[in-house]
Amino acid sequence: MSFVLHERLKQDCLMLGCFPLSRLLLMQDSRFPWCILVPARKDMRELHQLEWNDQVQLLKESNRLATCLTRIYQPDKLNIAAIGNLVPQLHLHHVVRYLGDIAWPAPVWGFGKPVPYSQAELEHHTGRLLASLEEAGSDGQVFERLTA
Amino acid sequence: MSFVLHERLKQDCLMLGCFPLSRLLLMQDSRFPWCILVPARKDMRELHQLEWNDQVQLLKESNRLATCLTRIYQPDKLNIAAIGNLVPQLHLHHVVRYLGDIAWPAPVWGFGKPVPYSQAELEHHTGRLLASLEEAGSDGQVFERLTA
Repeated sequence: MSFVLHERLKQDCLMLGCFPLSRLLLMQDSRFPWCILVPARKDMRELHQLEWNDQVQLLKESNRLATCLTRIYQPDKLNIAAIGNLVPQLHLHHVVRYLGDIAWPAPVWGFGKPVPYSQAELEHHTGRLLASLEEAGSDGQVFERLTA
Repeated sequence: MSFVLHERLKQDCLMLGCFPLSRLLLMQDSRFPWCILVPARKDMRELHQLEWNDQVQLLKESNRLATCLTRIYQPDKLNIAAIGNLVPQLHLHHVVRYLGDIAWPAPVWGFGKPVPYSQAELEHHTGRLLASLEEAGSDGQVFERLTA
């Protein structure tokens, strides 16, 4: 059987598109700009379980995403993490943090309840992010947006 | 000026030794086996700010550490994260987690207060970890323990 996105990630996130290795998700939580990369490989739980070539590819995709998030949001800090205590499928969080955000300096995982985006907010955020991701990167990584 | 370990990391951790790129620290908190890699590069805050060769090297060192932690502790989950909301110097957490641990499934950052190791506990943990790290790895990464 091929790779299937974990049910909980489907519920909590919006699928934005695909890098060569990973699915790109946006967490449905307007409190923090928060993206997740999920390598499309079966039965992976830990970063070091990925084959080396996949690890390097994930690092490239993470770099690309981090660069776009930084350009758009100018965060005080990015929080990048593979935790997976609740969702065992390997996934890599990328969270934009500001000194004044509601959880600062605590981590976002398990902090209060998600506040869903309005439709207008969602279009604003996804529009900027997808445009930035689709610009030709100097690293040659191709991002394909999901067409509805 | 060359790389200097952040004061807060010095206070909270025990320095175990060096990989080619990173310092290896053990968090002084007996609630969780918890190591930190700190790339010895000046003025780094984010993973994607490291030069690409350094990023790949950090990934190799993280793999090596994760493999040793898994071999020794057989965790239910590893939590690997670059957060840095309190300590701006780039550092990569590696935390051994169990379904029954005191914080599960919450993240460990900001959870309660650290419980320092006793001297006997410290010798037990560092002894096993250093022995595992010093075994010749198939990846050719060399780890040098800090001699007191």
